[in-house]
Amino acid sequence: MKEISGGVCAPKGFSAGGIRCGIKPTSQKKDLSLICSQDVCSAAAMFTTNKVKAASVQVSRENIAGGKLRAVITNSGNANACTGDAGLAAAKRMAQLAADVLSIQPGEVAVASTGVIGAPFPIEKIEENIGALKAALRTDGQGHSDALEAIMTTDTRKKEIAVEIEAGGKTVRIGAMVKGSGMIHPNMATMLGFITTDAAISPSALDSSLRKAVRVSFNRLTIDGDTSTNDMILVMANGNAGNTEIGGSGADSGADFETFTAALTHVCTSLTRMMARDGEGATKLVTVTVTGACCEETAEALAKSAASSSLVKAACFGADANWGRVLCAMGYAGVDFSPEKTNVSFKSRAGEVEVCRNGEYIPFDEQKAKQILEEEEIEICISLDGGNCAASVWGCDLTYDYVKINGDYRS
Amino acid sequence: MKEISGGVCAPKGFSAGGIRCGIKPTSQKKDLSLICSQDVCSAAAMFTTNKVKAASVQVSRENIAGGKLRAVITNSGNANACTGDAGLAAAKRMAQLAADVLSIQPGEVAVASTGVIGAPFPIEKIEENIGALKAALRTDGQGHSDALEAIMTTDTRKKEIAVEIEAGGKTVRIGAMVKGSGMIHPNMATMLGFITTDAAISPSALDSSLRKAVRVSFNRLTIDGDTSTNDMILVMANGNAGNTEIGGSGADSGADFETFTAALTHVCTSLTRMMARDGEGATKLVTVTVTGACCEETAEALAKSAASSSLVKAACFGADANWGRVLCAMGYAGVDFSPEKTNVSFKSRAGEVEVCRNGEYIPFDEQKAKQILEEEEIEICISLDGGNCAASVWGCDLTYDYVKINGDYRS
Repeated sequence: MKEISGGVCAPKGFSAGGIRCGIKPTSQKKDLSLICSQDVCSAAAMFTTNKVKAASVQVSRENIAGGKLRAVITNSGNANACTGDAGLAAAKRMAQLAADVLSIQPGEVAVASTGVIGAPFPIEKIEENIGALKAALRTDGQGHSDALEAIMTTDTRKKEIAVEIEAGGKTVRIGAMVKGSGMIHPNMATMLGFITTDAAISPSALDSSLRKAVRVSFNRLTIDGDTSTNDMILVMANGNAGNTEIGGSGADSGADFETFTAALTHVCTSLTRMMARDGEGATKLVTVTVTGACCEETAEALAKSAASSSLVKAACFGADANWGRVLCAMGYAGVDFSPEKTNVSFKSRAGEVEVCRNGEYIPFDEQKAKQILEEEEIEICISLDGGNCAASVWGCDLTYDYVKINGDYRS
Repeated sequence: MKEISGGVCAPKGFSAGGIRCGIKPTSQKKDLSLICSQDVCSAAAMFTTNKVKAASVQVSRENIAGGKLRAVITNSGNANACTGDAGLAAAKRMAQLAADVLSIQPGEVAVASTGVIGAPFPIEKIEENIGALKAALRTDGQGHSDALEAIMTTDTRKKEIAVEIEAGGKTVRIGAMVKGSGMIHPNMATMLGFITTDAAISPSALDSSLRKAVRVSFNRLTIDGDTSTNDMILVMANGNAGNTEIGGSGADSGADFETFTAALTHVCTSLTRMMARDGEGATKLVTVTVTGACCEETAEALAKSAASSSLVKAACFGADANWGRVLCAMGYAGVDFSPEKTNVSFKSRAGEVEVCRNGEYIPFDEQKAKQILEEEEIEICISLDGGNCAASVWGCDLTYDYVKINGDYRS
């Protein structure tokens, strides 16, 4: 597997584009994007588990039910959530508008929206600009880049990746983009993520592969504990690589399936780390790793609890080795473990320092610990004495800027 | 019921005091407190549900098992948590030291600690100062005030109350103090709270009354989602009022029981609101009230989810009427409700404005909404169309200062 450039346009047969249509009222930023394939794609997606679902989620869920798609149209600046029947009609209209300019069926189009919840949706801006969006489609990295810009909200960095692997006797490419920095929490309510691949893969194998990848990546990310009304991860596979179809026999297994899933997992994990690093106001990527657990679920629950704790996150911001908060957060995770057999250390490229052994204070070099925690990427390493299972969860620190960004998001 | 002065010293037969013994290393604040009764008390308590429990919680839980106590000794500045066998020995020693100077049994003493988790506990400072602590005991409001100061950490306000009621043919008093501003979350992991009363009441009736009061007060408070290793609510009743014993017949019912429980609930609810208002860095008390729910549990779960959301809290700080975040937070509360039958309004002494009807945007006066949300006490009113049950939850806004206070708490 090697990383390549081009994002969602790296796989053969995909084009993308992004323009400004004016849904973001107070900025000159792009806010309307389109990704499409020249051929029909196998498609799989995972959606928010929030009970309040945006109109786009309802439409996309329906359109992807048959496992086939050709395009996804996305706007930023308005979430089209809590907008009732008018919102649902607008989301359907978005799919129709994209289908019309691409000469495909509306049922082949997924729809995504992100932005303010509960504001009326200005569908007319998309109607006025759908021709310009079509005209902006490109098959190169610039098309990817424009489309990515148009889905970003409070993101401060572009989060994108593309990789190349050998599978089924051919070179296969996977490209991806995500937006998301606030309102991100585990359990598949994360952000918008669009993944393209020219692999030939059956819809069911693609779905299985996506679920395996998301379980250990996006579902182990926490920014602020909120989960959104709009979020989805979508993958489209158009088969243009010409490989022997993965999962063609109906099985979600075999070497090619494993290779593809490993690559997709790498893509998702890399994007997860980028999102954690770009958490709203974040200055640090914080990885919490639990080892020695009785099962992966326990390791994950403990790591999530520590990574989600406002007090742990604030201590990371302050480079304060306040490990007691880590144990405290583990204590309310709702799973069983032995505090008196728990060790904790802090690690970064500046070194590693053990701060707690067998659940108790041990003397440590405070100055060294501070240096370690002042790095931009830090890891809280927790070892239990309960088994051989492990899990990592990604998060970020809690900063003044988080509050600033979210104190008046709408204006 | 009328409010009176004197705090925990308002009920007959109680004395209290607080001094500085040096456990808080970098300040000149008081950090050691004692509350005691001249007679043996019926006692009841509720403790943190955190799996990582401070040594003081273990000792107090054991000592209160028989339903009798005479005193509680408390230090601030060090939580004596994650301190192993040495910590447990120190907590037992605290009880012994208090018992010695009061000429009572160590099993009649509850112990509480609050402060940094995971630092070695300096029991010698208490040994050196226990005589001075005894000498500081007073039966008046000053004794209460000193004791309260000595249990505070990041608290910026004294949180105290006392009330007087008629029960069992006599005047009965209840006095209380709490500390707690950060690391407060529902489910009985809240803070330190000490309540005294001169009521004659059986241990089992007292326990029942406390649980009823806490369920609708401290358990409906959320500051930052973290739950501590140390927290407890303790109530001691010495019978000095001379009333006919409440619960003496073994029943948790009757007019006196109801009167006492109503007063205790008022005490606990008042303190809960004070704690929310004094949340770390908070500028606002935020009450979230859900009405029209199918059951109280659903109302409570939805209100808690909205009150706990970092995004809702940050919007309150910014006086931004971003009601979509309220619906979004309700959506991941894990309980059933109908978003399309949900109404939301914002209320304060500046007025009330409806912002969402039937789950959708309705036009509202943004300027008016901002004025309402700029008040120090605001209420988010959510009405469902699912039944007749309601619940209120108390929280606060999320501010720059929360991050500042918690970024470097230990120094």
